[in-house]
Amino acid sequence: MTVEQAGPGTTRPGGRTARIRAAVLRATGDLLAEHGFARLDLADVASRAEVGKTTVYRRWGNPAGLVADLLTEMAEQSLPRTETGTLLGDLTANARLVQRTLSDARQGALFRAVIAAAVWDDRTDGALRRFYDVRIGEWAPCVQQAIARGEVPEGTDGREVIKAVSAPLYYRLLASREPIDEAAADRAAGAAAIAARAGAYLRPDVRQAARPERADEPGM
Amino acid sequence: MTVEQAGPGTTRPGGRTARIRAAVLRATGDLLAEHGFARLDLADVASRAEVGKTTVYRRWGNPAGLVADLLTEMAEQSLPRTETGTLLGDLTANARLVQRTLSDARQGALFRAVIAAAVWDDRTDGALRRFYDVRIGEWAPCVQQAIARGEVPEGTDGREVIKAVSAPLYYRLLASREPIDEAAADRAAGAAAIAARAGAYLRPDVRQAARPERADEPGM
Repeated sequence: MTVEQAGPGTTRPGGRTARIRAAVLRATGDLLAEHGFARLDLADVASRAEVGKTTVYRRWGNPAGLVADLLTEMAEQSLPRTETGTLLGDLTANARLVQRTLSDARQGALFRAVIAAAVWDDRTDGALRRFYDVRIGEWAPCVQQAIARGEVPEGTDGREVIKAVSAPLYYRLLASREPIDEAAADRAAGAAAIAARAGAYLRPDVRQAARPERADEPGM
Repeated sequence: MTVEQAGPGTTRPGGRTARIRAAVLRATGDLLAEHGFARLDLADVASRAEVGKTTVYRRWGNPAGLVADLLTEMAEQSLPRTETGTLLGDLTANARLVQRTLSDARQGALFRAVIAAAVWDDRTDGALRRFYDVRIGEWAPCVQQAIARGEVPEGTDGREVIKAVSAPLYYRLLASREPIDEAAADRAAGAAAIAARAGAYLRPDVRQAARPERADEPGM
């Protein structure tokens, strides 16, 4: 839903190539979500996308090539961050975006399939890592803004805060298999905001100098 | 000498059956970590475990049966929780245990393989869910003890706190693919302890009545 809104009918130049890519990647995502990486076949993708088989073979080469390009497209097309004016507002917007994506039937299945594929396919593993790197990089500046507003301490690691918001939702998707609902999203955002304010996500070099507010307990 | 021939010398009843199970499940874990669920074969497991093939087929039936029993054994044999006297100490002990497991080459590969298998195999999915249910249930009482000591508010959901400690480590294992080091473990424990003290993990019914301390921000 958030990722693949650009179907056919786009008017920008390069339209035909872009349309073929969109159709092929949509078919790739559908087949991945339905049957997984092990059963992803270029001929099936071509057929579902209504694109010539040779085009798919020539341009993407193999299933890992398709999945890598799908992840690139997902990173390109995913929504820009929302700016609400507070850290909690921004983190809640981020958590809700992740929550809507992972709880969507097709998208949730697609993420599970890609993560499972990455376990055994190095190219998919690299592409997945780059996808998260882009998404985390898109949202991390909201923590810089919170530092500028004085909401969280100087030296807070924005990328760690953003990962902390997503992590409980991915834990539900992959480990505990519980529903990924708005309450879980809001709890993840709220907890990350509180911990960030208290200095739990200071970069290690900063943490040497300044201790967090609760110095009465060891191990921080 | 095969496990089945190991014969006399054991005193406790059921010793031979238990030894066979241990050998078969160790072989299952090894093969899963090395080659994944899709290539898990009962004959290979029997051969590596030095156990008769018919024993493995009769007792476990198929690969999903092996993995389900492996997860049951992992839940049975995993370490009991540590009691340190403070919530942060207990959560740090939990985080370090998860961190050591997931960063261990064999265990990390095994968890990734099982989680990937659960995406496409319903029986593995159910067994994985039960595994986490047992592990979360083992550690959740440390939050009850923290409530009794007045460290965190009454009505804090212990299971949510324990999941919040594990989640960033699983996110590294499966999504961002960053190293799972002690710093990540301590940060996860520290953030969860701070957020728990501030009321971020109150059960929804409790949250209706009592607002957390930072009432100046919406969305909690």
